Amino acid sequence: MSRWAPNAQNRLQHAAMELYADQGFENTTVAEIAERAGLTERTFFRYFADKREVLFAGAAQLQSSLVEAMNGVPPEDPPMRAVARTFESLGPFFEDFRAGAQLRQAVINSSPELQERELIKLASLAATLANALQERGASDTVATLASEAGVLVFRVAFDAWVQPDNTADLTHAIRDAFSQLKDVTAAK
Amino acid sequence: MSRWAPNAQNRLQHAAMELYADQGFENTTVAEIAERAGLTERTFFRYFADKREVLFAGAAQLQSSLVEAMNGVPPEDPPMRAVARTFESLGPFFEDFRAGAQLRQAVINSSPELQERELIKLASLAATLANALQERGASDTVATLASEAGVLVFRVAFDAWVQPDNTADLTHAIRDAFSQLKDVTAAK
Repeated sequence: MSRWAPNAQNRLQHAAMELYADQGFENTTVAEIAERAGLTERTFFRYFADKREVLFAGAAQLQSSLVEAMNGVPPEDPPMRAVARTFESLGPFFEDFRAGAQLRQAVINSSPELQERELIKLASLAATLANALQERGASDTVATLASEAGVLVFRVAFDAWVQPDNTADLTHAIRDAFSQLKDVTAAK
Repeated sequence: MSRWAPNAQNRLQHAAMELYADQGFENTTVAEIAERAGLTERTFFRYFADKREVLFAGAAQLQSSLVEAMNGVPPEDPPMRAVARTFESLGPFFEDFRAGAQLRQAVINSSPELQERELIKLASLAATLANALQERGASDTVATLASEAGVLVFRVAFDAWVQPDNTADLTHAIRDAFSQLKDVTAAK
């Protein structure tokens, strides 16, 4: 086995997702993931802290992409519009990964432990967005409400988008979910 | 020590909260909690699975109170109004426990592990409310949006209510937070 492993991280992610889907997350070991990827366990641990983190490796990337996207939103946009534009701008990026996202979602849904982890990652995402909104001048409360509502909308849209029978793109799913949240809260 | 321990659960909760506040959650043992309450460790474990669960013993009670409250909401109320009425109806119940709630919040805020646990309990609360809304005829998506938005509002209101300088009651804090969420989402 060569010490030089092109796309080692991607190969490990692919191998892990296949194994999680085939035989279950709980039943899969790091040794099996490394073997399927044609790499060593040592290489695995160079990229991921454990087998769970393979599923959340994209979270840090998503977080910084969102902050960057919000920096590009006109400063006069009110908080909720800023959050909506931020999430909508990421829609196209996800389109290439729909099959992978479906697989990942199925794995997450299979394990309460992974669902809890997902919840915690999303809460951290919301906190980052709330900070960005405060830097734009929003109050603490408004920043929390807008960022958490935004993450809620993103979750709902993402869940709809990964459904096998769905044909809409993620950007439209996000717009729909925002408009549904607006209707739901207006009818109070 | 008598085998008959009146209010054993309350005494253990009080003792635990005092110790968590005085010396930190991490540094407190079950043995210390039992000793301060004048009870045995065996009695502690009759009521709580571990020292963390002392802080979340109220969650199941809160959950069933919320479901019961929603059953009393007029069936023609739209989902968000039903959720708002449900949370508002619980406000008076909390007023007697403000000092305890402040202490608990400080302990939760001191530990990332406890914050994660709180997050998970609140997610489970939202799922229960979403089920209740579906039973009232709401679609899956609307039920998720309304229940999660309701839990978000409750969290924001609760955070404001436990502040030392706050003078408003919880019911008003919840009403305020709902109206802020409505304003925030309307300005999208």
